[in-house]
Amino acid sequence: MTDELAIQTATELGFDASATREQALADLLAQIMGAYSVSDNEGPLADAIEQFLHKQSHLTVHRHGDTVVASTSFGLPQRVILAGHIDTVPVIDNFPPRWLNPGDPLIREDVAAAHPGERVLWGRGATDMKSSDAVMLYLAAALDGEHVAPAYDLTYVFYDHEEVAAEKNGLRKVVETHPDWITGNFAIIGEPTDCGIEGGCNGTIRFDVITHGVAAHSARAWMGVNAIHKAADILNRLAAYQPADVLVDGLVYREGVNATLISGGKGTNVIPDECRVHVNYRFAPDKTIADAKALMMGADCGAELGNGEHEATGGMFAGFGIEMADESPSARPGMDSPLAVSLAKLVKERTGRDPLAKLGWTDVARFAILGIPAVNLGAGSPLLAHKHDEQLPESELALLADILTQWLVAR
Amino acid sequence: MTDELAIQTATELGFDASATREQALADLLAQIMGAYSVSDNEGPLADAIEQFLHKQSHLTVHRHGDTVVASTSFGLPQRVILAGHIDTVPVIDNFPPRWLNPGDPLIREDVAAAHPGERVLWGRGATDMKSSDAVMLYLAAALDGEHVAPAYDLTYVFYDHEEVAAEKNGLRKVVETHPDWITGNFAIIGEPTDCGIEGGCNGTIRFDVITHGVAAHSARAWMGVNAIHKAADILNRLAAYQPADVLVDGLVYREGVNATLISGGKGTNVIPDECRVHVNYRFAPDKTIADAKALMMGADCGAELGNGEHEATGGMFAGFGIEMADESPSARPGMDSPLAVSLAKLVKERTGRDPLAKLGWTDVARFAILGIPAVNLGAGSPLLAHKHDEQLPESELALLADILTQWLVAR
Repeated sequence: MTDELAIQTATELGFDASATREQALADLLAQIMGAYSVSDNEGPLADAIEQFLHKQSHLTVHRHGDTVVASTSFGLPQRVILAGHIDTVPVIDNFPPRWLNPGDPLIREDVAAAHPGERVLWGRGATDMKSSDAVMLYLAAALDGEHVAPAYDLTYVFYDHEEVAAEKNGLRKVVETHPDWITGNFAIIGEPTDCGIEGGCNGTIRFDVITHGVAAHSARAWMGVNAIHKAADILNRLAAYQPADVLVDGLVYREGVNATLISGGKGTNVIPDECRVHVNYRFAPDKTIADAKALMMGADCGAELGNGEHEATGGMFAGFGIEMADESPSARPGMDSPLAVSLAKLVKERTGRDPLAKLGWTDVARFAILGIPAVNLGAGSPLLAHKHDEQLPESELALLADILTQWLVAR
Repeated sequence: MTDELAIQTATELGFDASATREQALADLLAQIMGAYSVSDNEGPLADAIEQFLHKQSHLTVHRHGDTVVASTSFGLPQRVILAGHIDTVPVIDNFPPRWLNPGDPLIREDVAAAHPGERVLWGRGATDMKSSDAVMLYLAAALDGEHVAPAYDLTYVFYDHEEVAAEKNGLRKVVETHPDWITGNFAIIGEPTDCGIEGGCNGTIRFDVITHGVAAHSARAWMGVNAIHKAADILNRLAAYQPADVLVDGLVYREGVNATLISGGKGTNVIPDECRVHVNYRFAPDKTIADAKALMMGADCGAELGNGEHEATGGMFAGFGIEMADESPSARPGMDSPLAVSLAKLVKERTGRDPLAKLGWTDVARFAILGIPAVNLGAGSPLLAHKHDEQLPESELALLADILTQWLVAR
């Protein structure tokens, strides 16, 4: 129970039939954390998950690449999707994982204070998001329609390449190639939320705001036009911007417009003929991408991904050149759907926490595009995601399993 | 006389004893232009110049690296230095040189219009500055104190590595290693000025103006502080700057403060924690480097080359971080010295041109540091320097030789 030695890399997932639920959850988590699965290396873990799910006779299992999808067919009127990515960000001396006993100096003070006397699983993926994966695997076995009968049909999605570029995202690929695998009335993504609900997500667009000048030797600057000086008003408009708080379906989303990169100039003695300010607008789910672009560059600017520079005809950067770099839609939280309302009520009872707006972009937006209301709900602290000292107090596994079981089974 | 064939590479410099002055000047120019001497390749041309000067029995010849210095010892009360660099910028299909006859389409329209019916020497170095070098070589032979007696002792400096980094500059090296070779009451540098006088030069300092912020994910921008937004006021101050015209010793110098480079940010989704604006201040010769720095960053800022970032305590960028990158002093035009006055009077008579301020930094500043008044006066158009179609109408050689001979000989 309190073995501090390194956990061996799992080649097979499973738990003893006589194990308690707590023991089964702990074993599953230790096994999948022991499987190295930094993005691009998900294969062995996907194999183990596929084998584990195949053993559950009530599930139909599909695989595309390193994404595994398993569905029940109980004939129930509604279907809930439980999704978790199985890749992690790169390790930072935090693989393989270890169980830490109470008092171990590797346990963070905030974790120890909130969970005194509790052992902690430490290592890459502990919060983002192998703890939620472990709970979902456990539920995939336990909610078998025989020993435990859920109120909804269920689809489990374990997917690859969430931590890297969107083009590699396994959930995106399955949605595009096998849309019939991903259907349902509600989806839960197990991103770490400390077992609270975080709903929807801001959208994001990125673009260059561009000024042009005329190059000249800096000893004869008046022969040229300084493009960097012309960028002063771009930065003035950015500096004057006040982040807006926007209420959508009862949740508050904070927007933001920020320069993230700036570049200009060709040499230390040359009047610069171009300056580019890379701007990121994070917009609330009350806006479409088109709405967001209209606010930044005017509705008829004409700048699209890959079509070069266009002059902003209106909006915050009216009069400057615009070149689009990236765009991802927002997702409404869907907190007005009956399933979301009942889940939020239960989470409030168990944790005292009200739903919060998700500010970063997450895969809930993919479900939103499909018309499936989705929320983030997972074990572990979002503040520890990607950190060197990622860790999970063991009781969070049972808490998440409790909440999901109670909500999926009770009517 | 009108041979358009490529001129053969010179291995020896000289002209026929029976040649006219015009023929001697043309031969010398064709010979030294035929010697390839892009910076780092000055050796063979320096050898030929050294041999040519050694043949003049009235000269004492020294050599340091590829810089050749030759001096008279007539025992006259004043000494004038004539200096020219022998290197060129890289060739652009303009080597070897060619004589062009009137009507040749390679002759620029502006040159043909100003010099109708005149042949033109075309190729790398024609104006910058082998034409002036040819005139100085001719004078080195002709002003021998016997057939022609100059009014001043003379020192000729033919130096290497002017077109590249200052650390390689041959004049700088000789001044540092053999300061006794470079003494005098007045100096003329043969940089192309169309046979006008350009005096003094602006000084230049370059430095980074720096803002600091706090990095954060751009989805939670309010957790950070945006260093690029903080740079707005740097650009505002630059954009508001009006170039000052400063009168020094009768010549007008235009100053300038310009951003030449800007950079900031670490990623498209990260609030930037630093922004750097690279600023170039070109200041008139009424100011020292210390004066210039006081105007930009306050007199007691403390920023020096290589000592990192210091906060500006005053001046244009008060309150921002400063890191020094480069500094070169200005040079007063010295137009109030009696030698400069008499030279300017003669140039005005011969060309109708008043002295102008030199705005870029040139080697006259090296003489200014030594306390030697110096001006630029040379054959050829400064606008053709470094161009592909560098070329010189032949009569400019005689014009420059005339002006210098008359001034150096007449009392």
